[in-house]
Amino acid sequence: MATAAIVGAGVMGTAVAWPLSDNGHQVRLVGTHLDKEIIASCKEKYFHPRLKRELPRNVTPYYLEEIGQALEGVDFIVSGVNSLGVRWIGRTLAPYVKPVAKIIGVTKGLEAGADGELVILPEVLRSELPAEVRGQVRLAAIGGPCIAGELAGRRQSCVYFGSRDLELAQWLAGIFRTDYYHVQPTAEITALELAVALKNAYALGVGLAAGLLSRAGGVDDAGAYMHNTAAALFARGTTEIHKILSMMDAHPDFAFGLPGAGDLFVTCQGGRSVTLGRLLGEGRSYAEAKELLKGETLESALVIEQMGKALPQLEARGLLRPQDMPFMHALIEVVVLGKPLKLDFEKLFAA
Amino acid sequence: MATAAIVGAGVMGTAVAWPLSDNGHQVRLVGTHLDKEIIASCKEKYFHPRLKRELPRNVTPYYLEEIGQALEGVDFIVSGVNSLGVRWIGRTLAPYVKPVAKIIGVTKGLEAGADGELVILPEVLRSELPAEVRGQVRLAAIGGPCIAGELAGRRQSCVYFGSRDLELAQWLAGIFRTDYYHVQPTAEITALELAVALKNAYALGVGLAAGLLSRAGGVDDAGAYMHNTAAALFARGTTEIHKILSMMDAHPDFAFGLPGAGDLFVTCQGGRSVTLGRLLGEGRSYAEAKELLKGETLESALVIEQMGKALPQLEARGLLRPQDMPFMHALIEVVVLGKPLKLDFEKLFAA
Repeated sequence: MATAAIVGAGVMGTAVAWPLSDNGHQVRLVGTHLDKEIIASCKEKYFHPRLKRELPRNVTPYYLEEIGQALEGVDFIVSGVNSLGVRWIGRTLAPYVKPVAKIIGVTKGLEAGADGELVILPEVLRSELPAEVRGQVRLAAIGGPCIAGELAGRRQSCVYFGSRDLELAQWLAGIFRTDYYHVQPTAEITALELAVALKNAYALGVGLAAGLLSRAGGVDDAGAYMHNTAAALFARGTTEIHKILSMMDAHPDFAFGLPGAGDLFVTCQGGRSVTLGRLLGEGRSYAEAKELLKGETLESALVIEQMGKALPQLEARGLLRPQDMPFMHALIEVVVLGKPLKLDFEKLFAA
Repeated sequence: MATAAIVGAGVMGTAVAWPLSDNGHQVRLVGTHLDKEIIASCKEKYFHPRLKRELPRNVTPYYLEEIGQALEGVDFIVSGVNSLGVRWIGRTLAPYVKPVAKIIGVTKGLEAGADGELVILPEVLRSELPAEVRGQVRLAAIGGPCIAGELAGRRQSCVYFGSRDLELAQWLAGIFRTDYYHVQPTAEITALELAVALKNAYALGVGLAAGLLSRAGGVDDAGAYMHNTAAALFARGTTEIHKILSMMDAHPDFAFGLPGAGDLFVTCQGGRSVTLGRLLGEGRSYAEAKELLKGETLESALVIEQMGKALPQLEARGLLRPQDMPFMHALIEVVVLGKPLKLDFEKLFAA
């Protein structure tokens, strides 16, 4: 049996405690400075207030101040923060990680590098680690359609664990796998991480259809929604994910598998990304929509902002053609440039 | 301006009258023997009872008995029947079609040939035409996410027109294209037709999750659905569509584009395929579920039945490996062999 520390006690970080605990592993759950109330509830009532569930049996909660104790002698660390916390967690773990420490992240996102290259979050985390261990820490990431509350509810869920170090992915898969949490190890971590990051942007894109419907007066007298429109946007999303993966020479099949089509599908079932899309589809500016969603971390917008930096450079370098990513360009215009929404459906599928 | 005859006055056949009429073309709408009441309503009230809409202005309704008059001098024919009607329409058109007649079909389905080869419906229709015109009739097909009632409601919809005769697809695209009906011509008709047929089978598959949820007691106290499960099934559907297209050497990119992921997405928004899936997921046998849906044409089950004939032969011939299509095998076991539903999630993504 292994001992794991999960750092970040939000819903997704905490949810992986269920399969770990069910497999008999010990779990130390460390809150960030944002998770104080969660950890207080976990310590006092053994209840996670955002997951609305009693914790599984093998979990011990820790405040951030107790992280040294929590990380003592663990077999691996789960990075449970969101994309805004990836550099923070790298710096926070820095004093504790040994050269061959194993870290697996649940975070979905990407960063644009100086020349427009797309950097996956495990590498961002790595860049914050001390130089003397940076190259030797073993990193992995979880990707695929997995709503945290459903994993904690032990619903059938299928995901990939990715790592350039396939043996690590396989070892971790063996640790986490249960009869409801189905884990495929893969070495294709770049494709995995890019697909699951981009799907947040395109879930916002699919959400636009609900807003356009509302702007058009809602369901008409004969009962017509805009599912056709949403489906076209969905298909353009998976198509553009495929274009990015192909450009990166990174296992393009993930565009139609669990990380692309699957994760996009689950994200379209509700949540902040589609809500933001709906607000923009209704004709609100990004500034107005953001105001309405005050306090929420908008992962979809963060990805679109990074793509706004990367895409012009990737096109200038000839790695993508201007006609390859019309949907992402439309999203960048709204979210980054603050322009009114403009979708040219005739051009969406021209390339 | 062109003159078109649509044969088959169901919802999908009739819906394409909207873009045609809006572009100024004349449309003759011919009911089959199943459409008598629809045509009576169209003649008397100019109202389509199933689409719940007044017909667009350029449409003239005809009973089947008037088909000779309706087909007189038309520029092209739209086959608007469902997959059960494809051989019928071939035989019905036989006395009228000239060697270079143009026919475009809206029908989604496939047939298993004698050696397990997958035959697309335009070729099934062609096989019913007289030998002296069979090789020269020009055939095309429409595929992509397009709910009929939404097309008739002039909602933004994106589809492909496929034909081995790309000039025909391009010509028809020019006839139909409007500012809400976006048509991409493609020569990849085999990939197009197989993807849009298979997605009906996999929409049933995605619908299983709703039934499994219901069987497990519904949404739990913490609010957990089975969206993770549905998303995994969705992703396995697009993955298996990709495997079939790859096997046929037929443009596998359609697996994640409009015909695969897009059309599967729209089909999952409701309708008979997901309803049948839900009933099976609840634990009902196919016979019981069929009884509950009496009178409905179950396109999803028809596709699974054909795959039940084809798949063992395709595997025996070494064109597919037994592990390539675990989801379709599970669907065949329930729908064709009448067995209880058994989904092995651990094996779904093993290959």
